[in-house]
Parts: sequence; C-alpha cells; structure tokens
Amino acid sequence: MARARLLVAYDGSAFHGFAPNEGVETVAGTLVAVIGRVVRRPVELTGAGRTDAGVHGWGQVVSLDLPEGTDLDDLARRVNKMAGPRVVIRRAEWTDEEFDARFSARWRHYRYHVLLTPQPDPFRAATTWHVGRPLDVSNMQLACDPLIGEHDFSSFCRRPKPGPGVTPPSMMRRVILARWSEPEPDLLRFEIRANAFCHQMVRSIVGLLVDVGLGRRRAGEVNGVLHAHDRQAAGQVAPPHGLVLWEVGYGDT
Amino acid sequence: MARARLLVAYDGSAFHGFAPNEGVETVAGTLVAVIGRVVRRPVELTGAGRTDAGVHGWGQVVSLDLPEGTDLDDLARRVNKMAGPRVVIRRAEWTDEEFDARFSARWRHYRYHVLLTPQPDPFRAATTWHVGRPLDVSNMQLACDPLIGEHDFSSFCRRPKPGPGVTPPSMMRRVILARWSEPEPDLLRFEIRANAFCHQMVRSIVGLLVDVGLGRRRAGEVNGVLHAHDRQAAGQVAPPHGLVLWEVGYGDT
Repeated sequence: MARARLLVAYDGSAFHGFAPNEGVETVAGTLVAVIGRVVRRPVELTGAGRTDAGVHGWGQVVSLDLPEGTDLDDLARRVNKMAGPRVVIRRAEWTDEEFDARFSARWRHYRYHVLLTPQPDPFRAATTWHVGRPLDVSNMQLACDPLIGEHDFSSFCRRPKPGPGVTPPSMMRRVILARWSEPEPDLLRFEIRANAFCHQMVRSIVGLLVDVGLGRRRAGEVNGVLHAHDRQAAGQVAPPHGLVLWEVGYGDT
Repeated sequence: MARARLLVAYDGSAFHGFAPNEGVETVAGTLVAVIGRVVRRPVELTGAGRTDAGVHGWGQVVSLDLPEGTDLDDLARRVNKMAGPRVVIRRAEWTDEEFDARFSARWRHYRYHVLLTPQPDPFRAATTWHVGRPLDVSNMQLACDPLIGEHDFSSFCRRPKPGPGVTPPSMMRRVILARWSEPEPDLLRFEIRANAFCHQMVRSIVGLLVDVGLGRRRAGEVNGVLHAHDRQAAGQVAPPHGLVLWEVGYGDT
C-alpha cells in the first residue's frame, strides 16, 4: 500500500456534510464507497476539513492508502464518472507515507460569498448568501482587524456536547488573513485563512461582519465579542451554502 | 387593465421548459400561478422565447396584463418570495399596450457555455456542457462565418410534426452575430444573436461547431450543412443545460 493525496471538489447541497455519517449521504462516505469499488478493497480516508452539511468544497484535500501501482489518473476518471459531478477528484497523486491531509496541513483557506442584489439570483442561490441589501464594506473590513493573530475563538465556535470524559477542546486558533473584496458588482467575497478552524467559526464570523455591514452592530464591537469568550456574543450564524473550503496549505504549495 | 413587462431569470434544470404544459412544472405555468395568486385574478402571459426543458433564462421577457395600479415592485418581491430562487422577476415595469414580448422583439441573444477541463466541475455542471477536451477555437470561429445573414436554417431545426392542416413553418432566420470567446481559462462561451430562432437551432449549431473544434468535421463543411436543408447533415445536438436565453432586444435597449 502507498499513500495518495487527492484534491476534491463537491457541491455541499448534495450531501449531509463531509464526515461519514451512518444512514445519510456524505462526501467522505461517497468517496470511500466509490474508491473501494474501483480498487476492490475497503479504504479509509482523512480529510483536511470536516465541512458541515451544505458547505461546499473546492480545494478539499484527502489522504488515503491505496494498493501500490494503482493508476491514479484512471482512478480519478472512474470515480468522477460514478460520483461526479456532485463530487469530483480534481487531482490525484502519490505522496510520502508521512503525509496526513488533516495533521500535515499548515493552513485552511475558506471563502464566503454574499449577494447584494435586491432580487435573488437562480444561478447563485446555491453558492451565495442572498442578503439583498447594500453593505458597508469598509466597516466590515475594519471589523476584521481584531480577528488577525492567535486568539481564543470561543465566541465564534460551537462547542462539542459536554459529557463525562469529554475534555473541552482548545478554541485557540491563529488567523492569518481576513479580507473582503467585490469580485463582481453586488457580489462580496470574504476570505479567511487560519492554521485551523473550530466548528462554525467562519459562519459565525461572517454573521457578525454582515451585521456590521448592515449597521446593526459597530466595527468597534468585534474586539469585545472576541474577548467575551461567549457564543451568545457573536449573534447570527451565516447560512452554510455561501461557504466553500477553497484551499489547504501544506508548505509545498 | 394595463400592460406590464417583466424581465425574468430561471434555472432551467428546475422546470420542464418555459411554455405551460399540463401536468408538469414549467416557468410560465409557475409564473401564471404565482402572479395570479398575488393579484387575485387569472392572468395570461407571453414570453419572448419558448426555451426547452433544461435551458436557462437570464433575460427572458414576459408581457401580461395586470390590474391598473398594481404595485409592480411589491409584485416582484412577493413572486420572488414564493417562486424564487428557481425563477425570479429581475425587473417589472409598465409598458404601452402595443408591447408584446414575442412579437415586438427585434432579436434574441443566447449564450452557450462549454467546459474544457479534463475533470467535471460540481459548480458549473448545471450551466455548462462538459466536453472535457481542448477545442480549436479559431476553427470554431471560422465555422461561424457562413451562418451570418439570412438563411433557411432547416438543417439546424427540429420541425413540428407534419399532419393534416399543418403548414410547414418557414425556417428563414437572420443571424446577426455568432462568436466564440474564452471568458475564463477552460471555459468557452458561444454567443449568437438572431431576429428569431427555430426549435433546437442554437443547440444544433453548437453541436456542429464543437465537432469542428474536436477536429471531427472541418470548418469548410458548415456551408454545405447549411445549404443541405437536411437535419441529418448537422450531426449532434448539444445538451440543453449549457444554453441560456441571455437578452432580448426591442429597439429600446
């Protein structure tokens, strides 16, 4: 067996999230089933990011062990024929056995798209949050400043259910960049890169920043929200379908 | 009653075509039902182009009579809330009583998108034809030349079923422009504008031009296909989901 690395894209609206989940269709569940059929043996895989139901993937990275000598181009073609276009292997290559899609990752980069047109758009409905009103982008950009650097992001993260034997996980994360741009008229793009993200962190940040853009909250409040370490402080969580796992960095890209 | 003009967008994959059709969901059928509910009386509408099942609309134009004094902005908002985002009124305005979306139109402009990436793309699967191989765009552009001008497009059109009392309709159409561009890497766009189109005309033309791009046919053959007046001469018909009714011209735009 040898370690392979896959670059995977998927339409999140077609799946109940990335991670395997008994009884529902997930991205990893689908890949495991289809790849297993191609290589004629059970496979296990690791993803760089466990995206939630409805969240899209463009640059999701997956590592898994495959029989040596497997023709990876042929594998990708066959998987894409069986599982595509909802989920697609964009690239497949051999890598060293130390490589782990999750633990080798140095950063994850997400994008979130917000649509400002007064009327909804049938062609962007599945990949944007239709806010439908003008937003104050310079205030939203200003509000990003306090997020940069290493912080406890408890205010923006959904905690796992507490229970006996469950150690509350650390919410310390290092945000490397957070910026807004307008790649097309009336379409805003938020980009955020961090060493890692905790659960619902991007969507909670976007929810707060859009509230700032709407004038419901002030840019100056973000620092206080961050240091409250209280999930109630952040406010609304942006819907999942505007979010896409865009790229994962391993130091080699 | 007064004449209104609507600019309508829709995701063709969600409907069985534009024209009302008993027992299946169509764009016009949905609009008539929803608008009728808002204005509390039955309405009838005319569309500029009867797009087929799977074909999208961005700039479809619809004319219909509504009670005078109807608040059109409010109507659009309510229709979009009920029927959107699959079908959306982008703009609604009053127009003169002579205006007819179909018969007042001077030209229709369609776009067709072809995706060249070797692997499919989950986010463009619904709006592009995934050919997945490089195409010779300059040959495809050359092959457009014979199409410009007024011709009998029988070779590219599906005829209505013959029968007693059915006069074979004229297939004479005037093509004003036909051009290929590459707005993004690996994404080709075909634009074609004509006074009107007959059934499956754009998709038959695209099918032939892609065959030219693949080297299966020569650009020099297009003139012969056009003058054959024989539907068998054109070859493959491109799939509907790459096609979108982009704009309709009335002399005022």
